[in-house]
Amino acid sequence: MIEPKILKGFRDFLPQPEMVRRNLTERIEATFRSFGFVPIDTPALEYAEILLGKGGGETEKQIYRFTDNGERDVALRFDLTVPFARFTALHQQELNFPFKRYHIGKVWRGENTQRGRYREFTQCDFDIIGSDSPAADFEILLMIRSVLTDLNLGVDIKINHRGLFNRFLSHIGQLENSVEILRAVDKISKVGVDETKQTLAGIAGDANGQKILEYIGVETTGKDASFEQALNRITELSGGPSPESERLSLLHKFMNDAFLGTADVGGAFSLDPSITRGLDYYTGVVFETFLTELPDIGSICSGGRYDNLAGLYTKNAISGVGSSIGLDRMIAALESLNKLPPANGFAAVAIACLKREDAGQYQALATQFRRAGVPCEVFTDTDETADSSKNLVKQFVLAEKKGHQWMIIPGARPLSDPLTLRNLVTRKNQEGLSVDEVVSAIRD
Amino acid sequence: MIEPKILKGFRDFLPQPEMVRRNLTERIEATFRSFGFVPIDTPALEYAEILLGKGGGETEKQIYRFTDNGERDVALRFDLTVPFARFTALHQQELNFPFKRYHIGKVWRGENTQRGRYREFTQCDFDIIGSDSPAADFEILLMIRSVLTDLNLGVDIKINHRGLFNRFLSHIGQLENSVEILRAVDKISKVGVDETKQTLAGIAGDANGQKILEYIGVETTGKDASFEQALNRITELSGGPSPESERLSLLHKFMNDAFLGTADVGGAFSLDPSITRGLDYYTGVVFETFLTELPDIGSICSGGRYDNLAGLYTKNAISGVGSSIGLDRMIAALESLNKLPPANGFAAVAIACLKREDAGQYQALATQFRRAGVPCEVFTDTDETADSSKNLVKQFVLAEKKGHQWMIIPGARPLSDPLTLRNLVTRKNQEGLSVDEVVSAIRD
Repeated sequence: MIEPKILKGFRDFLPQPEMVRRNLTERIEATFRSFGFVPIDTPALEYAEILLGKGGGETEKQIYRFTDNGERDVALRFDLTVPFARFTALHQQELNFPFKRYHIGKVWRGENTQRGRYREFTQCDFDIIGSDSPAADFEILLMIRSVLTDLNLGVDIKINHRGLFNRFLSHIGQLENSVEILRAVDKISKVGVDETKQTLAGIAGDANGQKILEYIGVETTGKDASFEQALNRITELSGGPSPESERLSLLHKFMNDAFLGTADVGGAFSLDPSITRGLDYYTGVVFETFLTELPDIGSICSGGRYDNLAGLYTKNAISGVGSSIGLDRMIAALESLNKLPPANGFAAVAIACLKREDAGQYQALATQFRRAGVPCEVFTDTDETADSSKNLVKQFVLAEKKGHQWMIIPGARPLSDPLTLRNLVTRKNQEGLSVDEVVSAIRD
Repeated sequence: MIEPKILKGFRDFLPQPEMVRRNLTERIEATFRSFGFVPIDTPALEYAEILLGKGGGETEKQIYRFTDNGERDVALRFDLTVPFARFTALHQQELNFPFKRYHIGKVWRGENTQRGRYREFTQCDFDIIGSDSPAADFEILLMIRSVLTDLNLGVDIKINHRGLFNRFLSHIGQLENSVEILRAVDKISKVGVDETKQTLAGIAGDANGQKILEYIGVETTGKDASFEQALNRITELSGGPSPESERLSLLHKFMNDAFLGTADVGGAFSLDPSITRGLDYYTGVVFETFLTELPDIGSICSGGRYDNLAGLYTKNAISGVGSSIGLDRMIAALESLNKLPPANGFAAVAIACLKREDAGQYQALATQFRRAGVPCEVFTDTDETADSSKNLVKQFVLAEKKGHQWMIIPGARPLSDPLTLRNLVTRKNQEGLSVDEVVSAIRD
């Protein structure tokens, strides 16, 4: 006998958590679709060369890489961004730009599981590529807000502009150190102001370090007034109005316009000059998303604008803006806030099995409920030798364990006798009902 | 630069085919859910020992197997059945039996791509385990019929009983050769009657070979009368009534009962004693599903009853009945019959972009359509220097390429001026509409 174990960092999903995951994914996807985004899919397995690109670093250590039976050097995708870049380069003639796509799929990383990380997890990526428009930046931000407010989550989306930060660095003569400076600033929430000050002084000198802290140190609270205040401040510190500050200003106008005349609440944008996103990849607007009720779990949805998505695979510079939601972190957040949406679209009703030979009629009865839009399980087993009330009680218990809220008890002639509807929560029966009456009772 | 290629046998899915796949999966899943089936998920990667079990044969050659960074011997799952057996053994204390699950997921096989096979493909499996009831057999058959009739496909589900076949073989003294005989019979549609006759004569002798051909040779047409006729014939040939013939008889009763009083057509069951399914795995009812309009593509959904799902991983014998739909073959069939359901739930409407600085108001307008349940893309780019009608024509062309059917053209004050709705198919405009009027026009 083989021990039925699974690999460390990998997970089975039992029905209850899987229903939750599917419901959540469907809701997120419905928002994506409502914005006119379309889905794509790519292979789980790709040439290692494609996935590793310039290679090196953490990625190379974490990737599942092997030689296949055809002696090809292959690997499992570790994110959805690199496959999207490869996809875009390969299919650029077939895509209609600006191209708005989402991609929900599993990715694999040999992460250290001691940090509570999984080695197989689901990402939801969404990007607009082939457009340099501020309206595209704004749409991505608005869509994030829509996904999260639909889940009844209050959000603070903190925005910054990498280009404006670089303009400021250039203004103080520190552009050549920008990568190091960005990395140091990116760590400020982890290591604290004092250590960051020291690091920055080491890179740029005491005076410049102080100026950088001043630039990023603007405290914003998510109110509109503050966006403007912050924008004026960093515009001035970076040497006056510029295309980058104009873009932020336009984004701010869009925000105001889009919420005009709506009763929409629960999500706000703020300008936070300390947001840099460590990756070299980004060149324009960058952002992180925090839950107002649970800021400590960190950003649950980050991203930004890039000017060369697929430079490794094509000569054409394809710019875009995009973001990614980690499903696991989202579920953890919703769970701890007790805001996980209930599992919808799954059966909450079971039909009891009283006589084995009536299974066909029970199914015919169930068909009537299914056609009325009520998913309905038919119990297929019964103990005909047992006392009939004991037999029913057993089925009530099973139905409860399975998460059903209702049980339908057919009569001796299942298709013509009136039905009994048992509420498994209140344990009360309603007798003498027609199919339509049962449907109404369940829907109420 | 790296060439953006993908591995042989693997596929990218562009938006149009991916929308079709997702729509189709959602429809299949909706039927599963309407029967009270619940989803599970398992890792893509498992210990090779778990997946290979007793190992050997074709599986071992086709599997993607490698040593991970932790020196574990691992492999990508090549079907959803083996992981389900492992899952059931591991979680048997947490599951409520009878357990009705579905699992839609990717699997990987290093198949010979010259035969038009893919190395990554999606399976949709569904099983009822922990029940030996004929009602469970019937439910699986009914669910297959429902999935396919929902897709407007006429089906013929051919049923047989492995146990009854074995009883017949025992009756003619050939039980010891049952595996070889089943394999020979399974190939009859490929190799023809003559070759099968020779093979059977070689295994069981001329006279017995003739008897076997007589047993399996009953031609059924899918009509109820024929089910009975076939059943009477094989009952007699197997030595008279038995628990197995009784079960088939009960299934036949269920079929009649379940369609009583409904106007349901388009799917029929027939009894075909030549259906054996080559696998040793099955012990009871077995079945294959053919499309009445496209019988030549072969069975698109096969399965049966087994009495020991997880014997490799647990001492408990868990019986069940189940089946699997291959999504690719299903799509190919729907395509060639011109019955692929249209992509639902995706935007068919785009809002034109006339002025860049109005992007926020266009989104506010779109929000009104989205709230009314109309998915709506907002165009984020415009050429303000171009002639405004040329600019619009460009956007019409893009919208058509993206598959939209409608374009909304906002006025100079997007949130208060009346809207123009262009039908991109008829190329006709309706002017002076409110948001509600546009919603109604689109819905009509």
